[in-house]
Amino acid sequence: MSSQPPLPLPPWLPPQLSQSPSPTLHALSTSLLPHLLTAISQIGASLRTSHHVALAGSANLFGDDQLNVDVSAENAVRAALAKCPLVVTASSEEDPQEKEVHQGGEAAAAAAAASDERFSVAFDPLDGSSIIGANWSVGTILGIWKGETALGKSPKEQICSILGVYGPRTTAIVAIREKPEDAGLCFELGLDDSGCNIELVRPNVRLSSPPYKTRYFAPANLRAAAESPSYAELVASFIREKYTLRYSGGLVPDLGHILTKGHGVYISPVTRASKAKLRKLYELFPVGLVVECAGGKAVDENGRDVLEKGVEGCDERGGIIFGNTDEVEEVVKVLLG
Amino acid sequence: MSSQPPLPLPPWLPPQLSQSPSPTLHALSTSLLPHLLTAISQIGASLRTSHHVALAGSANLFGDDQLNVDVSAENAVRAALAKCPLVVTASSEEDPQEKEVHQGGEAAAAAAAASDERFSVAFDPLDGSSIIGANWSVGTILGIWKGETALGKSPKEQICSILGVYGPRTTAIVAIREKPEDAGLCFELGLDDSGCNIELVRPNVRLSSPPYKTRYFAPANLRAAAESPSYAELVASFIREKYTLRYSGGLVPDLGHILTKGHGVYISPVTRASKAKLRKLYELFPVGLVVECAGGKAVDENGRDVLEKGVEGCDERGGIIFGNTDEVEEVVKVLLG
Repeated sequence: MSSQPPLPLPPWLPPQLSQSPSPTLHALSTSLLPHLLTAISQIGASLRTSHHVALAGSANLFGDDQLNVDVSAENAVRAALAKCPLVVTASSEEDPQEKEVHQGGEAAAAAAAASDERFSVAFDPLDGSSIIGANWSVGTILGIWKGETALGKSPKEQICSILGVYGPRTTAIVAIREKPEDAGLCFELGLDDSGCNIELVRPNVRLSSPPYKTRYFAPANLRAAAESPSYAELVASFIREKYTLRYSGGLVPDLGHILTKGHGVYISPVTRASKAKLRKLYELFPVGLVVECAGGKAVDENGRDVLEKGVEGCDERGGIIFGNTDEVEEVVKVLLG
Repeated sequence: MSSQPPLPLPPWLPPQLSQSPSPTLHALSTSLLPHLLTAISQIGASLRTSHHVALAGSANLFGDDQLNVDVSAENAVRAALAKCPLVVTASSEEDPQEKEVHQGGEAAAAAAAASDERFSVAFDPLDGSSIIGANWSVGTILGIWKGETALGKSPKEQICSILGVYGPRTTAIVAIREKPEDAGLCFELGLDDSGCNIELVRPNVRLSSPPYKTRYFAPANLRAAAESPSYAELVASFIREKYTLRYSGGLVPDLGHILTKGHGVYISPVTRASKAKLRKLYELFPVGLVVECAGGKAVDENGRDVLEKGVEGCDERGGIIFGNTDEVEEVVKVLLG
């Protein structure tokens, strides 16, 4: 075992987490989080100069440019994971198979031997390919699981998720919940392109409680309402009730909007004609943890908590409804009766 | 008169504009455009580190932070205009009165004496205050008018507009039409935070013609559909016809999306219960020029071309419907009968 003194906690960690952290939280916040946040900074910096994705968006003639943005984001996250000896396996939306991160590296083996902590990471390196050409905000989604795999596990083992948001600035929304019975904490960090400066912008991101000043809705896959009378009725009721529409079509910015305003409900239904599109491991589980840690609710297309049931494979998909608890419950009533 | 050789045209000017440019186009592209594009780069760079607008967005407790972003954008544009001797007057959404830009400066007077060209600029320094807190893309809108004022003039005298788009990267959409009978040209530039590098990304931005692969709609002020049966019917018809919803609530990114995809229709209706919100001088006229130069159509809430009639005052407002010509005409039929 190592006799080195433990690494200090980073200064941007919310005060609530800095008092006598568990070994798991200590490992998370001194190793995984700093490296993964650096990757998010790097992805943000690289997007700043990726002017040719606009061509990909418009014509699909330059598919390689589009692909390059995804690949460069994937590489940034993989490089960060390679620096985290406690991460055993990882899988991503771009390469949806869980694989070992360190193949017999001595340094990694030595560092891992000094700790009992083990993690698995599931991520979507760049979510929002349909809107990046238009220069709309996009994101990175990362889910961190306790243990050596995310497959066949309860999503309660997913103890942290990180959403990188690339817009006019680069921000990260982080949720941490070590034990299922904890409330968890969601906080927002401000990053810069150098990756050297991280600022704690909102130490405790919480959704509001009713009554709400302004109410927002984000109806994904709205075309499904053409075949689903209940979805059509739901949308009509939002209009009647004068909810404000905000729907970018990017899962990360759409969630970020709800967390910033303290209110909103996002609906991505599954109907007979439109199949489930969102991947549980790379999208629904990390989003679910963020929403719950912010005091909201996230359910699947059947109205069950998205974090109730894990996956056996990397490609399982589903629908989602998330936002303020009362709004989600109301939507479930209308959609599922 | 000056005997200095004329300034060379910038390398990022589309080739179509570089052949024997008129004195007006020469003045635009060697003086106004470079300085205003630098201002857009500066605004983009300053937004990168404006992490505290998130607080303003969420609670309105930190209104000063929010204001600071607007003020700093306003100052960047004003500083650019001060370097343009041929710009006589300017007004902005933040300070909606047309004022002289150069008050008796000798250098400006001398430079102006060397040219017969005169311009007036109307701008919205930072459009999208409701979404910047959520880190969604926002924009700057600039309209450049021939002559010493924009008031009491036909909008055909607005010969150039520039939209700065601040998202994962900073881009500028530029439209130039010197004479009303010209088709005009819309092009897209990629900027960087230094302001030193400008890249011609799309030399000729054009909306597509039917048949369209994917059709998009952006229904602004959707709450108005609660009181307007025709707007409600319009939205229902988009759903029936399986249009894809994309609506960020930022005028610039919403237009940018349409220009990137080559298709889309944006509707900001005016109803009895919901008054006209968009300012003609700072929003509707510049957007109208971009849309027309990209081969599309932009009409007001009465179905008239937004560039048909000018304004006498800075605060005149209206509704707008813009996008592909056939889509706009169809919307007008449904909304106005």
